Amino acid sequence: MKEQDVLDALRGVIHPEMNRDLVELQMIKDVTTHDGTATITLALPFKNVPVKDDLVGAIRERLMELDTIAAVDVELVEMSQPERAAFMMAAEGGPKPAQSVNQIDRVVAVLSGKGGVGKSSVAALLAVALNREGRQVGVLDADITGPSQPKMFGLHRPPPMSPQGILPAETPGGIKLMSINLLLPNEDEAVIWRGPLISGAIKQFWNDVFWGRLDYLVVDLPPGTSDASLTVMQSIPLTGIVLVTSPQDLAGMVVRKAARMAQQMKAPILGLVENMSYTTCPECGARIEIFGPSQVAYTATQLGVPLLGQIPLDPELSRHCDTGTVDSYHSDAFEPIAERLVALMSEMKTPPASSGQ
Amino acid sequence: MKEQDVLDALRGVIHPEMNRDLVELQMIKDVTTHDGTATITLALPFKNVPVKDDLVGAIRERLMELDTIAAVDVELVEMSQPERAAFMMAAEGGPKPAQSVNQIDRVVAVLSGKGGVGKSSVAALLAVALNREGRQVGVLDADITGPSQPKMFGLHRPPPMSPQGILPAETPGGIKLMSINLLLPNEDEAVIWRGPLISGAIKQFWNDVFWGRLDYLVVDLPPGTSDASLTVMQSIPLTGIVLVTSPQDLAGMVVRKAARMAQQMKAPILGLVENMSYTTCPECGARIEIFGPSQVAYTATQLGVPLLGQIPLDPELSRHCDTGTVDSYHSDAFEPIAERLVALMSEMKTPPASSGQ
Repeated sequence: MKEQDVLDALRGVIHPEMNRDLVELQMIKDVTTHDGTATITLALPFKNVPVKDDLVGAIRERLMELDTIAAVDVELVEMSQPERAAFMMAAEGGPKPAQSVNQIDRVVAVLSGKGGVGKSSVAALLAVALNREGRQVGVLDADITGPSQPKMFGLHRPPPMSPQGILPAETPGGIKLMSINLLLPNEDEAVIWRGPLISGAIKQFWNDVFWGRLDYLVVDLPPGTSDASLTVMQSIPLTGIVLVTSPQDLAGMVVRKAARMAQQMKAPILGLVENMSYTTCPECGARIEIFGPSQVAYTATQLGVPLLGQIPLDPELSRHCDTGTVDSYHSDAFEPIAERLVALMSEMKTPPASSGQ
Repeated sequence: MKEQDVLDALRGVIHPEMNRDLVELQMIKDVTTHDGTATITLALPFKNVPVKDDLVGAIRERLMELDTIAAVDVELVEMSQPERAAFMMAAEGGPKPAQSVNQIDRVVAVLSGKGGVGKSSVAALLAVALNREGRQVGVLDADITGPSQPKMFGLHRPPPMSPQGILPAETPGGIKLMSINLLLPNEDEAVIWRGPLISGAIKQFWNDVFWGRLDYLVVDLPPGTSDASLTVMQSIPLTGIVLVTSPQDLAGMVVRKAARMAQQMKAPILGLVENMSYTTCPECGARIEIFGPSQVAYTATQLGVPLLGQIPLDPELSRHCDTGTVDSYHSDAFEPIAERLVALMSEMKTPPASSGQ
């Protein structure tokens, strides 16, 4: 079969920009041979791609090497829209393996705008509460320059890597976790990156990590309303956002900024949690409002979002976070908050794609 | 004087890219007239600037309008290095007016890496302490997405603007202050900017604000080791950095990242302050280590930097910060820290330029 010989020969013609052969790229639509003349139908993604003449020349050169071919005709056609989409996907190396495996039902981002109000603790407590109810839970630590999830869960070893992608680390309780700190040679190492690298890392944590099937993915956002938060809100289909604040009006102001960002980005806000509301004197049992009286009711009303609850400042929680045992910490104050969030999300639609963009 | 007429006429030739005339730009090196022929020596920054032919054409056209000129010769020369530097400065609108006025003796940046450990409070307390000693003090709020200095000092009105630049706001006690929140129509407004805009704002606060003469400029850095911190460390000549941490080992880890960044950027670290070390029960006077036992001695040793002191968590400070009266707050714990910093900096060299880059 001369046609088959020609097709085999065309596997030797590599697309110079894509590093794959023309047959593999499904650019060869038809091959006929007649009286020593081979006629090739070459499909181009667009009619006038600059590489056109190079391709035609390379086809001609390769086929003229065959003893049975004396002349080569190349006919050009344009790809249909579905052909073009398949070609583009092949050009990008095919669908990401992780994306074909991941199925993530709900994504909750924990946001505060201001640092140090306990956003990471709330993210971890939420993951632990959901996990205790028997849900499959993951934590995506989007705080690239100040990651604290691995330390809170006591995870310090690099996650398993495979040529297809990265597997998340797993806590003793079975929560899946991905954080930049798992990938650093030393957890004290600084990640001195400008915005585009920060955004790239977050996208990779979403696109290239094998999360598998999850009922909930909790995203821990860094302080601020710049690159990291923007990337999460633009690239990850969020079911909702939990806002965290502290009693200080100063914190409230910065949290209101974060809430405005979420509103501008059309990311639904599930509600507001006040952390560090008060502490209890271990000597006399007095309730001390360490950061002054709460402003959270005012902030919730101003934003028009539900107040999910208040959490006291508990030295026990600090101890668990420092010793990497947050998943064995029990908080009476947080349990009803987690229940309320689950109820709120059960009424919300699942995001359209399990792991889009 | 025909030469003077020719020179005057050349003031009518505008450089198309710089919107200034050729005489003002010092591009006309020589003018001679002889028998109705004008000979012009035109200096170009580089021999083959693309605008060359346009300039020669425009000179010819303008001079041929003069009754006394029948022919025009344009000779081209290349500028010397100093001429070129002056030309480039003229092209950029001359030296920034603020830079010729500002004289800033020492710049101290307050850094923590982690948010919410009281970095902004320490920056404000340092400014207040220096101001009480009779020094001229400014505060540059480099936290663009979560600015808190204006609220702490009770400043809410936009600073005075002039065509030459921006004047800082001034606290009742006479501390000069610049913050993005002074420029927003509403302090709750979110600043949803990616890195380059964040960096641009910080550079403007340094280059274009009329700080005048200052003994100390205190820079309040946001959490993280990304764009804002990078820009401050790259573009502002820092006398030194004050690191702020809290007793939590978790905070310590993130602060160690910030310290590593400062070391990598060759920014000198003056020392470490632990904030929120403990609180005192208002009922029974017990000392409560709210964030667990201090880790600061370990962190200071690990980093090889002096431990400057510890500050308790004081609800009074929260109240002052929320009501905008931080400059009337007195802290017995902070005074020795400020004194120690002044002593440390008196031994340090003043940065080379008062407001460079």
